[in-house]
Amino acid sequence: MVNQKLKFEPVRFDSKSLVLIDQRKLPGKFVSIRLRNVKQVWHAIRDMVVRGAPAIGVTAAYGAYLGVMRENFKTQEEFFDQLKSTCQYLKTARPTAVNLAWALDRILTVASNSREKSTHALKALVLREAISIHKEDIATCFSIGRYGAPLIREGDSVLTHCNAGGLATTGYGTALSPLFEAKRSGKRFHVFADETRPLLQGARLTMWELKQYDIPATLICDNMAGSLMRKGLISKVITGADRIVRNGDTANKIGTYSVACLANAHGIPFYVAAPISTFDFSKNQGVEIPIEERSSHEVTHVHRHRTAPENVHVYNPAFDVTPHQLITAFITEKGIIKPPFSKNFQKLK
Amino acid sequence: MVNQKLKFEPVRFDSKSLVLIDQRKLPGKFVSIRLRNVKQVWHAIRDMVVRGAPAIGVTAAYGAYLGVMRENFKTQEEFFDQLKSTCQYLKTARPTAVNLAWALDRILTVASNSREKSTHALKALVLREAISIHKEDIATCFSIGRYGAPLIREGDSVLTHCNAGGLATTGYGTALSPLFEAKRSGKRFHVFADETRPLLQGARLTMWELKQYDIPATLICDNMAGSLMRKGLISKVITGADRIVRNGDTANKIGTYSVACLANAHGIPFYVAAPISTFDFSKNQGVEIPIEERSSHEVTHVHRHRTAPENVHVYNPAFDVTPHQLITAFITEKGIIKPPFSKNFQKLK
Repeated sequence: MVNQKLKFEPVRFDSKSLVLIDQRKLPGKFVSIRLRNVKQVWHAIRDMVVRGAPAIGVTAAYGAYLGVMRENFKTQEEFFDQLKSTCQYLKTARPTAVNLAWALDRILTVASNSREKSTHALKALVLREAISIHKEDIATCFSIGRYGAPLIREGDSVLTHCNAGGLATTGYGTALSPLFEAKRSGKRFHVFADETRPLLQGARLTMWELKQYDIPATLICDNMAGSLMRKGLISKVITGADRIVRNGDTANKIGTYSVACLANAHGIPFYVAAPISTFDFSKNQGVEIPIEERSSHEVTHVHRHRTAPENVHVYNPAFDVTPHQLITAFITEKGIIKPPFSKNFQKLK
Repeated sequence: MVNQKLKFEPVRFDSKSLVLIDQRKLPGKFVSIRLRNVKQVWHAIRDMVVRGAPAIGVTAAYGAYLGVMRENFKTQEEFFDQLKSTCQYLKTARPTAVNLAWALDRILTVASNSREKSTHALKALVLREAISIHKEDIATCFSIGRYGAPLIREGDSVLTHCNAGGLATTGYGTALSPLFEAKRSGKRFHVFADETRPLLQGARLTMWELKQYDIPATLICDNMAGSLMRKGLISKVITGADRIVRNGDTANKIGTYSVACLANAHGIPFYVAAPISTFDFSKNQGVEIPIEERSSHEVTHVHRHRTAPENVHVYNPAFDVTPHQLITAFITEKGIIKPPFSKNFQKLK
């Protein structure tokens, strides 16, 4: 365990293989799977063994190393060809979270900047960079927690959507990190977790994590959030993010936009917690973010049980975009960023 | 089959017993269950073998008859004691839909107004009244469809929540009835159905019904509705209702309020289709409506599969209240009612 504050390690590199908690099995079973090659890493990301923008980034970085680790390269050119094709392949696993591309580009840049090194040394460099990305993620999450915790007040009732906890990162979370920190400092508050259809990450993962940290929490169906707000039972909302663009528009798990819109209608602050690796300054507006559509099976079946008639048409986007106007502030590892976002993001670069 | 327009009969009284389509089994299995006594009727309503405000009303009316049908009453007093206690008991099956109490009160009133009759004649009277309530429900649904159909325009994209279709009534529905009528008249339009957690009536029942009537439909998770609206993919919303009070505040399936609030934020018309039996003029405002809370098991399990950690706290209200300000108009069997509702409801009395 890298840090005593962590209660579990979703991603771990261990003697030439990558060990992931299989998040599809939680909360029923706590099992890990061991990945030894790039194809396995691609499928683990695609099939959501591991999910959450930061966790995907770290996983992909180790995946890049697995792609070159066992090869005997005769030339540097062979090494770079292999590293580039590995990174290109891994980027196709999921399109929306920018951290995937961010981590792989970082690996590529570090290697490209050391062209004078032997292929053996280059391999070591790739591993070292993956480990750096991993360690930085942990430090980043702690930092998000420290900056975010003061937002949590005694007696607060905080709504969160999907899972942006330890499992979405490499241990401490983004949206949940301020809650973990607030709890450590002795604050009393309550959390409502949207179950988050179709894959129920809120029910399965967020409720499980909040239990690990002994934070009082209530599970609700996604469609109950508005009603709770109207009753005055929600004092703030915190979610994670999969990609944030220059104007502050934010892609996150499907349903986040509805929550933000409802929070706005009820005058409830809506915070997005995310590391700087989630910011994509190459894009100006949310409409430019590619949104992944996933299999209809995720909606029509729960654990092999069919919940809809056969052959029905399903729309299953995995993410939506929340326009910046609905976001109160971003919680990052460099501090709280308030509007105007385009201007205030400058200090993050 | 009472009418050729109906494709199925959710409630049927058949030689001294009540036959219900077991809606918990749809869409996987189309099976009926036969009820012979009041306790069975109470459980069928409570456990949602039958659900939907109008269907519950008709079922309860037949239940009242089953409560007196086999007894040999020595005096009229005995008959009325039994009828009253039966009705009182049936009213406790579910608290929110007012149609349950409305149907039972109607049975009681008709019997009370014929105190001069023999107990044998009174039994017949109760059955006749139950049959009337049933027939009127069918006629009412057709009428709602006729008044509502003109609201559906060629190329419309209509969102509905939960199931207010034939299965929620005795055959033709409230919210879906205008769609069935519009389809019969040859209009082309598309329906989006919220799956409606936790019991998935939208996925299981509405998608099944739309298929029976050959209406193009797409299933979505509840948390996707806002995102669809923002993309301009929803042109209007129609839902049913479980109770409508004097000022127009409307209790309906949990999640309806969120949909109404989102529709309002996007300038999309929001219609409520309901028979006059759903109006409760004894109450002034939505806050007075009792809201049923159901078992946490409905949220934590899908078909015996656990989707959340054990012993988590769950909030599971079955309904919420949509304030009248968010409702564009009501579609009733007497026509479309626009604001101001308190004034325009007068003509329904």
